[in-house]
Amino acid sequence: MINRRIVLASRPEGAPIPANFRLEETALRPLEEGEVLLRILYLSLDPYMRGRMSAAKSYAKPVEVGGVMEGGTVARVLESRNTDYRPGEIVLSHSGWQSHDITRDIRRRVDPDAAPISTALGVLGMPGFTAYVGLNHIGRPKAGETLVVAAASGPVGATVGQIARIRGARTVGIAGGKEKCAYLLDELGFDVALDHRAPDFAGQLAQACPNGVDVYFENVGGAVWDAIFPLLNGFARVPVCGLVAQYNGVVPGTADRLPDLMRQILSRSLHVQGFIQRDYAADFPAFHDEMSGWIAEGKVRYREDIVEGLENAPEAFIGLLEGRNFGKLLVRVAQP
Amino acid sequence: MINRRIVLASRPEGAPIPANFRLEETALRPLEEGEVLLRILYLSLDPYMRGRMSAAKSYAKPVEVGGVMEGGTVARVLESRNTDYRPGEIVLSHSGWQSHDITRDIRRRVDPDAAPISTALGVLGMPGFTAYVGLNHIGRPKAGETLVVAAASGPVGATVGQIARIRGARTVGIAGGKEKCAYLLDELGFDVALDHRAPDFAGQLAQACPNGVDVYFENVGGAVWDAIFPLLNGFARVPVCGLVAQYNGVVPGTADRLPDLMRQILSRSLHVQGFIQRDYAADFPAFHDEMSGWIAEGKVRYREDIVEGLENAPEAFIGLLEGRNFGKLLVRVAQP
Repeated sequence: MINRRIVLASRPEGAPIPANFRLEETALRPLEEGEVLLRILYLSLDPYMRGRMSAAKSYAKPVEVGGVMEGGTVARVLESRNTDYRPGEIVLSHSGWQSHDITRDIRRRVDPDAAPISTALGVLGMPGFTAYVGLNHIGRPKAGETLVVAAASGPVGATVGQIARIRGARTVGIAGGKEKCAYLLDELGFDVALDHRAPDFAGQLAQACPNGVDVYFENVGGAVWDAIFPLLNGFARVPVCGLVAQYNGVVPGTADRLPDLMRQILSRSLHVQGFIQRDYAADFPAFHDEMSGWIAEGKVRYREDIVEGLENAPEAFIGLLEGRNFGKLLVRVAQP
Repeated sequence: MINRRIVLASRPEGAPIPANFRLEETALRPLEEGEVLLRILYLSLDPYMRGRMSAAKSYAKPVEVGGVMEGGTVARVLESRNTDYRPGEIVLSHSGWQSHDITRDIRRRVDPDAAPISTALGVLGMPGFTAYVGLNHIGRPKAGETLVVAAASGPVGATVGQIARIRGARTVGIAGGKEKCAYLLDELGFDVALDHRAPDFAGQLAQACPNGVDVYFENVGGAVWDAIFPLLNGFARVPVCGLVAQYNGVVPGTADRLPDLMRQILSRSLHVQGFIQRDYAADFPAFHDEMSGWIAEGKVRYREDIVEGLENAPEAFIGLLEGRNFGKLLVRVAQP
């Protein structure tokens, strides 16, 4: 049997280009005791993958040049030499950008009757869990407070906004373009939606936050940070889960902003904290229960942007870093 | 009766100079119902006062030009029209840089039999409490972790180091000059003492922290921050209670350090949080009990640097910002 896979052909300088990826075909070897053979159904594309393409030290090892691109996947068990898994079962794995995988590393079983299996990569998976633990452990929005989140039509931002609304906060979502902003208001229940491409974005943001900002859920960095920073209230919390605007490289500022940041952290008792959802794994069962309930009650909605075919993953990923997706970006690698 | 007081004559540009202060004498008016007349015995001099001399927005209002310089004080009640306080009692007040005060605003009674009354401004007062809440709520040093603190012979830094040692952490103290470094090792029990004036300071710090830094208690900023930053471990905590090196103005860096800070906050899950001790007032009784016990057992030591006479407060304060004091800086305004 043949495995199709996309490997890192070369490390990008700045924004990734198609030539940084290469599609390969290899023969699959027989299973050893304890292993399963997976047919990948859905591949998740997420901004963090840009970090794995660079050699720079981060919270995880980079993908080697020539190695399969990393990524979360939902898959069907085709064959099994592992007594815990039977052929036909649907599982969550971290198989990366390929059509098949031989592995012992199954993250969990996915129940296809409980929710669409693709949600295990979105609202009920890593992005939703990122929103949940970032708010529970760091952001802690209280009723009446103002929360701001960017990339608000994406899977993390959309969930952040909706959980904060459930907690009683006033929510301001930032997205790119009219269509996404309308979605924030009409479907996700944000109190305000702002287009970061508007020429007067910083002024609009200040107007939208007359009582300042109590929680800024940081997943983009860049110009949005600059607009938010002066609005942060005393005791504001800034969970930092991503900096998409920085991933392709930074245009250096004209001045050193560090001293002012530290001064404001001190004078406004700000709390700025980076986090990775996997460090809160003990919370996952509670998250899964609570989020499933919210989805069933219609309190949390989600949107998927599904691209057909593994060969289209590189182009879709390049678009993700430019904000071209609308909702959780997934590649349908095979029909479920 | 005459009150001697030091007022803010003009706002400093950069480092304060003697001409920014003016000594005045005024007549004291009679007491009204509910007021007490205090004779100030000790005035605390602290780095935060530099912030009050500037008009820039911070966590507290600036001192007006012509207004009495702010500050914590230990005083004796001379006269009282307040049924809660009797003449002769020793109290903690925030009377500022003056010899007498007419006020209703007494912070608490000070028991002269429990500890030297000056400690209410130091190890048993605001600086000690700053160390305590910053470690309990943000720094949370664990046994075996490495904690670094600068200005480590000062009242906050010395207490931070000693509490962290009680918690089982390895403690690295930074101070200016051989004498202070010897004091850190011989009297305060730091594991390592480093002189920030050493030409190879950053290299020495890296050598002193072979396992990285888990808690950096930030009270100075500037060059020490630059040396610490690359050493911060994943999940490091940085309570920020002061930035003395920035108070007299900042020499701008040649590059914008903000993007790298945010990147490291994300990739190392750093927790950077500013705080003011007064926001944890509910903890004060527990602090006072626990710290009194540690002092009685010899687990926490303290050192005072006492300047005689209110008229010498400006010069002493200018020296404080340059690190010329050695221990908690106090002005003895009158013999107790």
